[in-house]
Amino acid sequence: MADIPARTELKVTTGPIRGSRKVHVGPLNVAMRAIDLEPSSGEPPLNVYDTSGPYSDPNARIDIMAGLPQLRRDWIMGRGDVEAYDGREVRPEDNGQLGPDRSGGVPQFPNVVRRPLRAKAGANVSQMHYARRGIITPEMEYVATRENLGREMLREYVRDGESFGAAIPDYVTPEFVRDEVARGRAIIPNNINHPETEPMAIGRNFLVKINANIGNSAVASNVATEVDKLVWAIRWGADTVMDLSTGRNIHDTREWIIRNSPVPIGTVPIYQALEKVGGIAEDLTWEIFRDTLIEQAEQGVDYFTIHAGVRLPYVPLTAKRVTGIVSRGGSIMAKWCLAHHKESFLYERFDEITEIMKAYDIAYSLGDGLRPGSIADANDEAQFAELYTLGELTKRAWEQDVQVMIEGPGHVPMHKIKENMDKQLEACGEAPFYTLGPLTTDIAPGYDHITSGIGAAMIGWYGTAMLCYVTPKEHLGLPDRDDVKVGVVTYKLAAHAADLAKGHPAAKLRDDALSRARFEFRWRDQFNLSLDPETAEQYHDQTLPAEGAKTAHFCSMCGPKFCSMKITQEVRDFAAKQNAPVETFVAAEEAEAGMAGMSGIFKENGGEIYLSRK
Amino acid sequence: MADIPARTELKVTTGPIRGSRKVHVGPLNVAMRAIDLEPSSGEPPLNVYDTSGPYSDPNARIDIMAGLPQLRRDWIMGRGDVEAYDGREVRPEDNGQLGPDRSGGVPQFPNVVRRPLRAKAGANVSQMHYARRGIITPEMEYVATRENLGREMLREYVRDGESFGAAIPDYVTPEFVRDEVARGRAIIPNNINHPETEPMAIGRNFLVKINANIGNSAVASNVATEVDKLVWAIRWGADTVMDLSTGRNIHDTREWIIRNSPVPIGTVPIYQALEKVGGIAEDLTWEIFRDTLIEQAEQGVDYFTIHAGVRLPYVPLTAKRVTGIVSRGGSIMAKWCLAHHKESFLYERFDEITEIMKAYDIAYSLGDGLRPGSIADANDEAQFAELYTLGELTKRAWEQDVQVMIEGPGHVPMHKIKENMDKQLEACGEAPFYTLGPLTTDIAPGYDHITSGIGAAMIGWYGTAMLCYVTPKEHLGLPDRDDVKVGVVTYKLAAHAADLAKGHPAAKLRDDALSRARFEFRWRDQFNLSLDPETAEQYHDQTLPAEGAKTAHFCSMCGPKFCSMKITQEVRDFAAKQNAPVETFVAAEEAEAGMAGMSGIFKENGGEIYLSRK
Repeated sequence: MADIPARTELKVTTGPIRGSRKVHVGPLNVAMRAIDLEPSSGEPPLNVYDTSGPYSDPNARIDIMAGLPQLRRDWIMGRGDVEAYDGREVRPEDNGQLGPDRSGGVPQFPNVVRRPLRAKAGANVSQMHYARRGIITPEMEYVATRENLGREMLREYVRDGESFGAAIPDYVTPEFVRDEVARGRAIIPNNINHPETEPMAIGRNFLVKINANIGNSAVASNVATEVDKLVWAIRWGADTVMDLSTGRNIHDTREWIIRNSPVPIGTVPIYQALEKVGGIAEDLTWEIFRDTLIEQAEQGVDYFTIHAGVRLPYVPLTAKRVTGIVSRGGSIMAKWCLAHHKESFLYERFDEITEIMKAYDIAYSLGDGLRPGSIADANDEAQFAELYTLGELTKRAWEQDVQVMIEGPGHVPMHKIKENMDKQLEACGEAPFYTLGPLTTDIAPGYDHITSGIGAAMIGWYGTAMLCYVTPKEHLGLPDRDDVKVGVVTYKLAAHAADLAKGHPAAKLRDDALSRARFEFRWRDQFNLSLDPETAEQYHDQTLPAEGAKTAHFCSMCGPKFCSMKITQEVRDFAAKQNAPVETFVAAEEAEAGMAGMSGIFKENGGEIYLSRK
Repeated sequence: MADIPARTELKVTTGPIRGSRKVHVGPLNVAMRAIDLEPSSGEPPLNVYDTSGPYSDPNARIDIMAGLPQLRRDWIMGRGDVEAYDGREVRPEDNGQLGPDRSGGVPQFPNVVRRPLRAKAGANVSQMHYARRGIITPEMEYVATRENLGREMLREYVRDGESFGAAIPDYVTPEFVRDEVARGRAIIPNNINHPETEPMAIGRNFLVKINANIGNSAVASNVATEVDKLVWAIRWGADTVMDLSTGRNIHDTREWIIRNSPVPIGTVPIYQALEKVGGIAEDLTWEIFRDTLIEQAEQGVDYFTIHAGVRLPYVPLTAKRVTGIVSRGGSIMAKWCLAHHKESFLYERFDEITEIMKAYDIAYSLGDGLRPGSIADANDEAQFAELYTLGELTKRAWEQDVQVMIEGPGHVPMHKIKENMDKQLEACGEAPFYTLGPLTTDIAPGYDHITSGIGAAMIGWYGTAMLCYVTPKEHLGLPDRDDVKVGVVTYKLAAHAADLAKGHPAAKLRDDALSRARFEFRWRDQFNLSLDPETAEQYHDQTLPAEGAKTAHFCSMCGPKFCSMKITQEVRDFAAKQNAPVETFVAAEEAEAGMAGMSGIFKENGGEIYLSRK
């Protein structure tokens, strides 16, 4: 048995986010972050959406060897439609042939659940199933409170935005959540074997969410850093995390991550299935894939990326592309289809997969295996052929009340982004869209968090429900801790820009609070209200380190004399002193009138002015 | 006399940009960068737009004590409409009361021009004036060659984009440049006293340009670093540079910058004028301002930001704003107007200013002194009142054939960006729009190069001609060398994303070349074709440092076994081997047909599948 590393080795990032207090709202104790403002502001604390889980709660006892408390356990058991059973035994191939003792590999999680839950025979435990039967679950109530974020402060709020046909409510009720889930316009990804999650919704009429990818790799990483990558990613705002681990230790790494994750975890099961057949795509079988689904379902994976839309007839459509097939799952299935010259078993067995999903309440993330990998390949026949097949599969999944979201591109120039959103809404009956970027140009490797952040903000505005982050290392290497943070914050700001543009009632509160702080030189409030308080303060201090500068009524950009905000305040004071309200000023019209005549006069003596030496 | 620092102290960044060769194209020797690709690619070198000037030319002798060669001198003299005259003497107040010997300040530029040029009495030397008389200047020819960039490779190019009514030609002729300048849709900012410039055009039908701001500050910096900031900014792609220096040494710092700049230099003259009156806005006078215009005109400033649209009646419109007036120039003029309760002298003397501009061919950059400083203030009455006044002033400047561009916001949520572009085109007769960002949210200080890069890409797509960069330090501190680079590269990618979306013929060539390199694992080509080859390679090497990795047919993200691009190539080979062209595949329709029946069968035995333990 491999040694359990000392706890110090398994240390993860804890403690409050700078300037924030953890608060728990409502009967379900929905976790939020309260940002207290300086007394001089005369403003109440601002509550912001909080994905960081217990890790940012000073009162929580964190022990990743034990895993997080099971917030949803009672809710799940209380519905009386699940049964515990003897789980599938872990096999050597689950961890890359490490052997039963896992020697040399990642230690087994000390607290593994031996008897996972599944739906009783004939039952369906998906949130969509409950929703369609008119049942409002605690998960839905939790989501409603969580999404409502400060909307009660908005009594006289005037809706301002363009939502392109979304139906964002002024106030989110549990019934609204139920209705959105029932009609498939939103999903609540919550495997019954992952009771540690704080429920969240992914849907066009809720706040735009972001996903961060983590995972070990054939080349690097270990379990401690993987768990901390999760904790680190949610600390900065990741709403869900995908574990894209490959190679050895996949099973055990995933166990550590799920048991310590307050956010939904997604995976791409075909990656592990491929490991089980030594990486030979042709050797994949339905049995091995199904066995992998069961294995991950019992661990508690909340959504599966399934590339069931990569069909045999579509493969040749990619042959003339500049970058062919860039989705790993897509290329694996394409190779399998060609090798056997048969239709994809994911497509042919789709309804069987759905049967498994509904027994654990796992949501589909229907993969876009044929997404474009370059500007040149955007919006081509292969991409849209797959999209329409994903639409067909969405309806098939909905027949069994299984939750679905749809994955989207990729690399798309700005003028072709909206077509992706419009076609997805039409083909997939408003099932939530979940896009990777898209990257709006190919020429900036090292800055692809930005090339894609542009596309992400735009497609989020158009209606995408969740944005999969891209880090600065995209196309180049493995993201480190800093890259993950930059990727998450970049996508958080893109998602927020989208919420603002959609006219999301709660979104503008934070911008306005920060702008008031900026205008009044409340530097600490400005830092604390920002998405990354530490970086904001650090940048400020690089130029003006003195503590005094944090209360100074100017900043380093202009210095004391030139500060335009200071001058504006003087303008206001001045106007006040000589009590000169709006009315007393020359009316715009009058001013205009006088001008025409003047310009003539100026021209007369103007001729020589540039000759003047005075 | 202050000592002239040793040349070592004045070292600036020189040498070729990684992977690029300086080439000179056509009879005017237009400078471009040729990127050579690996022989295995079978592709010709790719020429890219080059703003870096002689500094990246190994054959150029760089001596910033002497300044750059005067490329345009003969063109200017050849027109026979200018005269040299005894320039204005430098006064103590020009450098912040340092006294005639400048003791303790920046040393005087060793090679100052004592007899600047101006138009002969009654003459007009603006490019617009020549254009309107049907004259094609060498400056226009230079621009045509420079903008054409690889378009000759595009014989069978199919235009793909949405340009929102722009008129981008397949091929740029000198006559097209002349016509765009004549109708005011493009400007070529080129003071006759700045003959060191390589001519460039700013206009909706040319490549989107970017500006970088540099400048000393009340708090930091010195001349050597200022000159290198210029050299550094243009190395990474800045098309123009604005010198926003304040405090002492303004005059001498500007002289060093202009004499060493191959790109147009812009300034905000009101900043220096304010210094001359000890920072007291109320003490500003037309005489002091005019004297400052002459001072800077003789030095060779190519465009002036003039906040002539901040009129007395508009000032109270800002009183209820969340962030009031955030433009320095705007707040200075607002304070002046209030203090004297008089209309702005910039507005009243506008035609006199224009007289000066046309004598040196200085372009207007009509400042948006009332631009919004927060999401809350976007598109408000004050902002648009000023915009329509800028439209009126544009036509007044055009009456004297003086070139004009219009400055724009600021902070604007995505759904309000297009209205800015549409109103500007309508109000200002298609004069080039020059925007700062806009920032699409206020909540990410430290990441405002990204919040604004999103808005910049969008408004560039909609028709903005030049994007003023924002660095990560925006709102927080002074940008250092790294911040300037990140800001420039971010804006370069935003401008390029805009060119792509507009369907600019030359834009896509570079994306396609890089994507082919990526797909074929030509790592070095991928680095060299990127906007920042150094960062791209550095990120790659952090994970896979070995030289071999640069030719390896996989990368660190997936490792050898999982590389989707590798699998795609295998898919192609496989298809080729068993010669299975498109036709031999199951037609999509057939496949569809078979499915309906199947799904029924699966359902039968599917019921128990998730119970299976195998």
